[in-house]
Amino acid sequence: MSERASDRQGTTGSPDTPEAIMDATYTALCDHGFADLTMQDIADESDKSKAALHYHFDTKAELLLAFLDHLYEHVTEEYATTEGDDAVERLVGFVDSVLCRTDPEEGQAFQTALLEIRAQAPYVEAYRDQLRRFDAFVRDRVEAIVSAGIEEGTIRADVDPADAAAFIATLIDGVNARRVAVGETDGGTRRQFLAYVRDHLVAPEADLEVEG
Amino acid sequence: MSERASDRQGTTGSPDTPEAIMDATYTALCDHGFADLTMQDIADESDKSKAALHYHFDTKAELLLAFLDHLYEHVTEEYATTEGDDAVERLVGFVDSVLCRTDPEEGQAFQTALLEIRAQAPYVEAYRDQLRRFDAFVRDRVEAIVSAGIEEGTIRADVDPADAAAFIATLIDGVNARRVAVGETDGGTRRQFLAYVRDHLVAPEADLEVEG
Repeated sequence: MSERASDRQGTTGSPDTPEAIMDATYTALCDHGFADLTMQDIADESDKSKAALHYHFDTKAELLLAFLDHLYEHVTEEYATTEGDDAVERLVGFVDSVLCRTDPEEGQAFQTALLEIRAQAPYVEAYRDQLRRFDAFVRDRVEAIVSAGIEEGTIRADVDPADAAAFIATLIDGVNARRVAVGETDGGTRRQFLAYVRDHLVAPEADLEVEG
Repeated sequence: MSERASDRQGTTGSPDTPEAIMDATYTALCDHGFADLTMQDIADESDKSKAALHYHFDTKAELLLAFLDHLYEHVTEEYATTEGDDAVERLVGFVDSVLCRTDPEEGQAFQTALLEIRAQAPYVEAYRDQLRRFDAFVRDRVEAIVSAGIEEGTIRADVDPADAAAFIATLIDGVNARRVAVGETDGGTRRQFLAYVRDHLVAPEADLEVEG
């Protein structure tokens, strides 16, 4: 969105218009889901009129792509680095931060809208491209943490960082899909994830405790 | 569906009508997805008229619930038992059979429609109930295989069968969601799944090889 939206910002005289629209889109997606969402629903969540939204974005699809772009910027900034004394702690912290929500109800509402968008990916190339960017970010972060762990000796040398990253990304997608489809929280999955990290990733000689 | 549909079978004089409608529904879901599917699309895939479909099912939602019911019967019958010399072989075989498709393109089309239905689960209780039945079946099968493995000594005694089942069900959901959203096959995930089975589930004293 940015180029187009910022081209127009000067004209509207409101430099924070796109940010406000993005916030309204998030709330509208949580409240209405993706399939039935209208420009009017988004306008209702903001102090803008539907006409003002259309001034920035011709179609709902264009607005949603801008929203995914905005979300990507936010997520990649927030999760670019993870605290931890060693790679194993950073890995568990990264997965926890991607999965855990401070507000589970809002988290589920947003994941539901995201799952609807995922199911549209085979039909809409632009959505698929955006989803692949998110996925590449998660896999790259996990791969980088695992590689650093192998180098520092906390993760086994025989682990393939790319395979481990694909596995963990799959697990994250599974937890998110299950929250929506069967309303499941990830308690048992987290215990097993920690067991997987402990038994499959941690170097035996590192003598690390992986705590739940 | 069965009670209602079979009540009416006598009247239509075609004992295989529901089965034919279910086959047409499967094909229509693969071709059109779930959101845009119409009764006419399903009629077009069968030798029935739209009116004939409505004779059996008042609404599209009712037909789709009947379809999920039919699918459940089919899946639970096909995957009720798994061949294998020991529990570990049966576990890998079960996961492979749930995940692998003889026709990847058709498999992806059907998984896309299923993901759309999953994303509707928070809004439609009847879909959620059906999805929970499928999920319970997968978890029960995995749990039973793992429990049998602990008893026969091929799976570690300290594994919690319910936790392992939740973890593996999550992984299966993740693979299916990723196929749709980012078009990923499960090659790397399968290698890591086998590594998880090898390192976390197999009893060291069992001296089993887990082959990819």
